[in-house]
Amino acid sequence: MLERRQIQRVVDMALDEDAPFGDLTSQTLVPAAAVARADLVAREPGVFAGAEVFEIAMTTLDRSVTVTLHLADGDSFERGAVLARVEGPARVVLQAERVALNLVQRMTGIATLTRTYVEAVAGTGARVVDTRKTTPGLRALERHAVRCGSGHNHRYSLSDAVMAKDNHLAVIPDVTAALKQAGVDLPHTTHIEVEVDRLDQIDAVLESGVVGTIMLDNFSLDDLRTGVTKIDGRALVEASGGITLDTIADVARTGVDVISVGALTHSVRALDLGLDITVS
Amino acid sequence: MLERRQIQRVVDMALDEDAPFGDLTSQTLVPAAAVARADLVAREPGVFAGAEVFEIAMTTLDRSVTVTLHLADGDSFERGAVLARVEGPARVVLQAERVALNLVQRMTGIATLTRTYVEAVAGTGARVVDTRKTTPGLRALERHAVRCGSGHNHRYSLSDAVMAKDNHLAVIPDVTAALKQAGVDLPHTTHIEVEVDRLDQIDAVLESGVVGTIMLDNFSLDDLRTGVTKIDGRALVEASGGITLDTIADVARTGVDVISVGALTHSVRALDLGLDITVS
Amino acid sequence: MLERRQIQRVVDMALDEDAPFGDLTSQTLVPAAAVARADLVAREPGVFAGAEVFEIAMTTLDRSVTVTLHLADGDSFERGAVLARVEGPARVVLQAERVALNLVQRMTGIATLTRTYVEAVAGTGARVVDTRKTTPGLRALERHAVRCGSGHNHRYSLSDAVMAKDNHLAVIPDVTAALKQAGVDLPHTTHIEVEVDRLDQIDAVLESGVVGTIMLDNFSLDDLRTGVTKIDGRALVEASGGITLDTIADVARTGVDVISVGALTHSVRALDLGLDITVS
Amino acid sequence: MLERRQIQRVVDMALDEDAPFGDLTSQTLVPAAAVARADLVAREPGVFAGAEVFEIAMTTLDRSVTVTLHLADGDSFERGAVLARVEGPARVVLQAERVALNLVQRMTGIATLTRTYVEAVAGTGARVVDTRKTTPGLRALERHAVRCGSGHNHRYSLSDAVMAKDNHLAVIPDVTAALKQAGVDLPHTTHIEVEVDRLDQIDAVLESGVVGTIMLDNFSLDDLRTGVTKIDGRALVEASGGITLDTIADVARTGVDVISVGALTHSVRALDLGLDITVS
Amino acid sequence: MLERRQIQRVVDMALDEDAPFGDLTSQTLVPAAAVARADLVAREPGVFAGAEVFEIAMTTLDRSVTVTLHLADGDSFERGAVLARVEGPARVVLQAERVALNLVQRMTGIATLTRTYVEAVAGTGARVVDTRKTTPGLRALERHAVRCGSGHNHRYSLSDAVMAKDNHLAVIPDVTAALKQAGVDLPHTTHIEVEVDRLDQIDAVLESGVVGTIMLDNFSLDDLRTGVTKIDGRALVEASGGITLDTIADVARTGVDVISVGALTHSVRALDLGLDITVS
Amino acid sequence: MLERRQIQRVVDMALDEDAPFGDLTSQTLVPAAAVARADLVAREPGVFAGAEVFEIAMTTLDRSVTVTLHLADGDSFERGAVLARVEGPARVVLQAERVALNLVQRMTGIATLTRTYVEAVAGTGARVVDTRKTTPGLRALERHAVRCGSGHNHRYSLSDAVMAKDNHLAVIPDVTAALKQAGVDLPHTTHIEVEVDRLDQIDAVLESGVVGTIMLDNFSLDDLRTGVTKIDGRALVEASGGITLDTIADVARTGVDVISVGALTHSVRALDLGLDITVS
Repeated sequence: MLERRQIQRVVDMALDEDAPFGDLTSQTLVPAAAVARADLVAREPGVFAGAEVFEIAMTTLDRSVTVTLHLADGDSFERGAVLARVEGPARVVLQAERVALNLVQRMTGIATLTRTYVEAVAGTGARVVDTRKTTPGLRALERHAVRCGSGHNHRYSLSDAVMAKDNHLAVIPDVTAALKQAGVDLPHTTHIEVEVDRLDQIDAVLESGVVGTIMLDNFSLDDLRTGVTKIDGRALVEASGGITLDTIADVARTGVDVISVGALTHSVRALDLGLDITVS
Repeated sequence: MLERRQIQRVVDMALDEDAPFGDLTSQTLVPAAAVARADLVAREPGVFAGAEVFEIAMTTLDRSVTVTLHLADGDSFERGAVLARVEGPARVVLQAERVALNLVQRMTGIATLTRTYVEAVAGTGARVVDTRKTTPGLRALERHAVRCGSGHNHRYSLSDAVMAKDNHLAVIPDVTAALKQAGVDLPHTTHIEVEVDRLDQIDAVLESGVVGTIMLDNFSLDDLRTGVTKIDGRALVEASGGITLDTIADVARTGVDVISVGALTHSVRALDLGLDITVS
Repeated sequence: MLERRQIQRVVDMALDEDAPFGDLTSQTLVPAAAVARADLVAREPGVFAGAEVFEIAMTTLDRSVTVTLHLADGDSFERGAVLARVEGPARVVLQAERVALNLVQRMTGIATLTRTYVEAVAGTGARVVDTRKTTPGLRALERHAVRCGSGHNHRYSLSDAVMAKDNHLAVIPDVTAALKQAGVDLPHTTHIEVEVDRLDQIDAVLESGVVGTIMLDNFSLDDLRTGVTKIDGRALVEASGGITLDTIADVARTGVDVISVGALTHSVRALDLGLDITVS
Repeated sequence: MLERRQIQRVVDMALDEDAPFGDLTSQTLVPAAAVARADLVAREPGVFAGAEVFEIAMTTLDRSVTVTLHLADGDSFERGAVLARVEGPARVVLQAERVALNLVQRMTGIATLTRTYVEAVAGTGARVVDTRKTTPGLRALERHAVRCGSGHNHRYSLSDAVMAKDNHLAVIPDVTAALKQAGVDLPHTTHIEVEVDRLDQIDAVLESGVVGTIMLDNFSLDDLRTGVTKIDGRALVEASGGITLDTIADVARTGVDVISVGALTHSVRALDLGLDITVS
Repeated sequence: MLERRQIQRVVDMALDEDAPFGDLTSQTLVPAAAVARADLVAREPGVFAGAEVFEIAMTTLDRSVTVTLHLADGDSFERGAVLARVEGPARVVLQAERVALNLVQRMTGIATLTRTYVEAVAGTGARVVDTRKTTPGLRALERHAVRCGSGHNHRYSLSDAVMAKDNHLAVIPDVTAALKQAGVDLPHTTHIEVEVDRLDQIDAVLESGVVGTIMLDNFSLDDLRTGVTKIDGRALVEASGGITLDTIADVARTGVDVISVGALTHSVRALDLGLDITVS
Repeated sequence: MLERRQIQRVVDMALDEDAPFGDLTSQTLVPAAAVARADLVAREPGVFAGAEVFEIAMTTLDRSVTVTLHLADGDSFERGAVLARVEGPARVVLQAERVALNLVQRMTGIATLTRTYVEAVAGTGARVVDTRKTTPGLRALERHAVRCGSGHNHRYSLSDAVMAKDNHLAVIPDVTAALKQAGVDLPHTTHIEVEVDRLDQIDAVLESGVVGTIMLDNFSLDDLRTGVTKIDGRALVEASGGITLDTIADVARTGVDVISVGALTHSVRALDLGLDITVS
């Protein structure tokens, strides 16, 4: 869940990175008294994400800047739509412009892409979830964008749920016993998920009695169906591995509960938004 | 220029974000004494960027981890190539894996894409440069990746060069006079670049006598050629605006000096690299 | 799970707080060349917690200090036992002494107290868990100490599990529906726990189908038994509210799964440890 | 002396620790528009400390929260007293509740305990002072709480006064000479206190002519009286070592000026305060 | 260019350094309700620099303090002039006084000194510039002060322009080739300046075709004139090395474009300003 | 007392300020493999201060750099003396050079100046002390430099001693009573100093019985003598206000104990030191 404090930290960091010792251009060429009005305009259709981020990015340098939001996070829009309007000292608006756009274009790109995946599985019970393949430093914002796109989040980090992958399992002599022990050691609130690569690994995992989700990694559609039947409600079933917009509907129809898609965040296409500025 | 200190800061931030209170999985399931060896393997061909980032990401949690680099930044590789090898406590290697990959895949993706643009203009005098459309927090790493791909960097931030865009010019009654004044006010080491949208704006800009680069924004190929002729060496000429891999060679052949391509960094496709881990 | 990085941050903060501009006494009165050897000695019996914290606290100011640990976290000890030995420049050892003791005495106090609670429920299936009533800034260390005392941890923070208390429920018109919706909105890895104050609230909670734990708050022993029977394995059962060392065994025998005890951390008695220093 | 800046830093740290990525519960289950009113109620009698801390803890997440204080720091109260009232968005009040209580309960616990010690020495000239056995990170708050309880503070840290303990003295061949030299080296504003374990050490200390306080460590009542007589006003006399509520009055009547009590802060019992919330 | 954020960071650091745990004096002796009015008064004539710094230093501890500025940065003033007026809680004004003065006296000292150098070269085309010999941590403020004194800034840091000194050149076998290569490698916006110690080094530098400024280091007036003639407008010419108020006019008349004066910032004489406080 | 941790923080800040995104010059022009040897050479005589600062400044960027110190802090040296030698990668040495010199030249300037003041009062009992007129951020270093010059330090900050000035006294109706109360409220280790402007203020101050030092501010030599006689050992006597090298001996001979000289740090002349680099 995205908090104002998290956004503020990202914005502060971004503004400092982009102007470590001031904005030479606006301070030299833009009169101190000039006021700018600007519209955040969509150059292509999409799903909005980052309304509060935009507001904080534009107002941090000078509290006299005002932002009026025309859309809310999760709203879809057409090309040409005005998502928000800014007004304030021209120097400040021009200095903050790039940081605001860099963040909001990325978030809106994620929301827009996520929506297409979610719509592809409409009517099945499957939820589309993100992964830990997020941009370092921007996870909170990117996960929020996934939710704006009607997607769901997976665990936030290594600290809030267990996900045992093939590499972890490889070092354990007795998987069932090790998972049982983990169930004893961990907080009772900790969800344990285990990734399996083959159908015959499922029994040992279920036998532990502590596993909440089994991830079927890179399974064929047939194997996914067999896996779902075999698990039979004793754990949630997550499909993962190279799932694309072309294949996700078929995957969803196998009856899995969760489909994780790294592509939601690992290779973000920034949606084309512009700030049309009128300086007066 | 990328420094170790900058990398360390990014890595620290990323590790903290990904495990605010420890890695539940490896601490619960991986024996403390287990040692892991892992290869950073290319799942597709590309141009390497981020060797030092990979090393720092893998060794920060525990100085006993060792990294052996098989390739250097800027080297191209084929699918299946082993770029580096890691060895150390399995818990630590598994905890750092995702952060290391998130950073290096992104950097290598940028270098690989940049190389294609640079190769497209080979033989012309034009340089391919990045923009400020970088990921907030990762600019130093992403710009380094552009250089690994044989691209060039534009100004680093708002603080180290002037770039007057249409929005800035819009508020200036007398552009020539304002630029002259900027030339007087700014350090003699500050490069002044001005963006023009039309050929008829060039004269006023050149007349100031202080402009080092004129950016021709969204010009047709014909207008670019006219602009180059008109400017005639009195300033560097930068072409910008929607230039793609399909069009860049033609743009380069108009005689411009610099071609800026936002796509190098604003919508990064992470290159597919994997960490093949052997825990023993 | 406690990481070296977390400990280091706490130790740095504590050393800075205790000597914002140096240790006047040791720098004035202790010869720079003096070497100190010191034993961390128990002045009363207990259960050790904080071995790595002690090591980091003693070595942070000067890497030439060495620490030899005689006991491991979780080991119990008698009065007079030597838990660890330090050797290094006397100025540094004397400067770090108080910070090291403040941290380790508190952690050992928690572990020792926790062990008594855990032993009181031995043979029942109930686990003794901590709460969020920890000292601000020291949660990671205090939760680790609880584990050293053979206790278990509850959720780490507001971010890694849901715990709906009476105050939350008070604002929800339809609890069953709201919980169902939360189950839809939250990551599939998020554990949902709900606190009830009366037996008749249980049905609505269970009906949601998404609740992993039901906390019975301030229930009589009879009501706890009734609650366990009623819930019948459909959720974990946590008992909470004013449970003391005198009452915990009876509570455990009602069949609850989890017993949360705020007293483990909210009013810590520092165990009496001393640093017996020989300066030479 | 406690400053708003110090409180803000502690509160920020505590809020971040308790919700590194948001409060899942209130954001999922509490309607965004819900408003909460809450009373900070005493569940047992005591002495209030932390009014400003409470206010800052409740208002930091959202400036629209208002806090009305009914008591001031140092006021005593009965069971059932309402110490303060809060009003604001329910999500925010519920998120901040635990952090606010964790801090204020601890501070009020310290003030309440301190008051009992202070009252026990009423009518003697002795002051009751705290020690450096405070919780790492919370020293400024805990020392303020001691003052709220009518106690006094000892030196703040290793940086603002000299306190030579047995360990320091052990390395000095000629104590008188060493103290004289310290008097020469240190700022003229630096108070020098020396701990002695035996009456026969007093002369050498006084002979230095620079010592402002002599601490008699673990002395019997008789030896304290002898020490006071022997020192005879040439330095302040501090009694220290295992002094309890049972023994402090007798210690005070020996004529010492200062009695330091580690128990004021080293093993804090959080006073039982609750936040009775009405969400509407 | 100086930004409010940079000033705030310096002020925060200075206030924390000067009162790590509060202002004992004002909190003990000054009544909480006392209000102070204070004038920032010049005890000698000068050129004002630091108006915004003064305002931020006085208002950071308590937003109820108000500052009225009577002069703007760059204004000159006589002895006795009132530069600004402050009003607010006496405790706060007295606590912030020293930090505010330490910063503004230093900045005003720099501006005043700079103005004398600038006036000495009036009528020549030369600009007087600062160097990197600034106080660590205060560069942004000190460079701003130079501008207030009508001076110009040199490059801000090692990151925004190239300055090849004798030490750099010493390691390069072929200077012309190395500079050419630097021109190829660096951003097209990066200004390259090269220091030469002898007239005969100029040709190799110019031959590279990429050098924007040639610094003539420690040249005689005759050699400066010869250098200017030789360079003949193909690069800017900077004179440097031991230039004083006595010699700067002659240096300027040699026709150089830029004269760098380390003395502007490396040995700042704080201008004598006082805060005349009326507490009521 | 200066600690390594304090130095490291200043050096980190200074290096980041001087190269926010790398050293363009050395990374472009200096071969990565080049090794530099450099001598820190005195261009004028002085008293060394900052040996450890120099070492940390040169080695922070790259631990392979080695520093050999030829002099210790407090040693005096002649023009031409080699104070220290550095060896390491040329890029790193050249990047750190300016930061190292900026710090050490300033510290050595302070030590050198202080020594002249201290020598001027030789044979009297008076100590020469610094003030809070230090450079924001550098107080710990500058005070250390004063000690290197055989001077003494005054209180470190507003937090470690009371200094009541005219502005404070102006708001107190009954000075004697207020000071008495401060003596009751403050830690028994807190030194109370009071500034008086006239002889007739002394009695009220002494009458409080809690004042350790009386500062005679801007007194004539005659009045200083009268003041010393009047105070008669009941408090230390500090002379302050416009004392210069010309007047300090006379002031010292009046019998005052402490002479505070703002000039030691408020207008530092950087001593001329150079780094003679041999790159090979």
